[in-house]
Amino acid sequence: MPHPVAPLVPHRVYGTSTSGNCHKVRLAFDVLALPYRWHEIDIMKGESRTPEFLAMSPRGQVPVLQIDDHTFLAESNAILAYLADGSRLWPGDRLARAQALQWMFFEQYSHEPYIAVARFILRFLKQDGHPRLPELTRRGHEALAVMESHLARQPFFAAGQFSIADIALYASTHRAEDGGFDL
Amino acid sequence: MPHPVAPLVPHRVYGTSTSGNCHKVRLAFDVLALPYRWHEIDIMKGESRTPEFLAMSPRGQVPVLQIDDHTFLAESNAILAYLADGSRLWPGDRLARAQALQWMFFEQYSHEPYIAVARFILRFLKQDGHPRLPELTRRGHEALAVMESHLARQPFFAAGQFSIADIALYASTHRAEDGGFDL
Repeated sequence: MPHPVAPLVPHRVYGTSTSGNCHKVRLAFDVLALPYRWHEIDIMKGESRTPEFLAMSPRGQVPVLQIDDHTFLAESNAILAYLADGSRLWPGDRLARAQALQWMFFEQYSHEPYIAVARFILRFLKQDGHPRLPELTRRGHEALAVMESHLARQPFFAAGQFSIADIALYASTHRAEDGGFDL
Repeated sequence: MPHPVAPLVPHRVYGTSTSGNCHKVRLAFDVLALPYRWHEIDIMKGESRTPEFLAMSPRGQVPVLQIDDHTFLAESNAILAYLADGSRLWPGDRLARAQALQWMFFEQYSHEPYIAVARFILRFLKQDGHPRLPELTRRGHEALAVMESHLARQPFFAAGQFSIADIALYASTHRAEDGGFDL
């Protein structure tokens, strides 16, 4: 699926390999067959809090896509929308685009804050008695149930076609078992 | 700013007047000069948990935009994108659109879960000793600081023009004082 507006110089991406939000961006590059240069940021070593990194990403968030010398794009789902714009991963129909965005906002509001945070607590902080875990687990299961119910009726999240909504939700979900979720 | 693809029949919107996420949608209709029919949902009376409402919005969320007899769109920012698509509120440039989305994902991930939830606890639950308030207040102030720093350098959130990102962040912020935030 070659991209119609591939840049002349590969994009630089600053991210953390173990992060679901960063994995989304790599997947999108791969599916679009776009070249990129990956710069690993070790958040556990504070590399997302250095002055150099904060100059690109004022909130110290990964991933960050470098557009040019002075322009950076944050928020994983906004990066997906940018990369996919003009390709088949971003539906051509107005309602279909809105439905893809609906699932991407669902992912960031109702899925990632529970499933990714539970995974971070269990896998990286290794605190299986953390006081937030029961609530995170309950809300995470609610999100998985919404996805399961939707996918029981259709193969893709939006518009009857593979889109960046599928990439976002796949990347956020495929390591949910690390967060104690039984898939 | 008349909309280029105004529907023949006014859209129906199901929402709660006191909700910032619902206020966004009303603002977008007003700015686009699109007609709509508002159906008030009283979430405190359980009206978002009835079988009729859950058939439109499986997660019981407001707002919901009715597209046709069988099609409904949830997630306030996805509704904004749908309404604005094809209008001047949705930038024509690929990077500008992604920057608008970046701020809208910021709004849903780093702003609304703190500022709107603090407001709900203080104004509706009236629990000023709620254990989550200190954390919500701290994270809410972080979000406001990011917005202030950005707007100190430019008048709009994305692309140097008024867009749905401004509508989303204005609607979420203008009642932040109810959540104990000093604007």
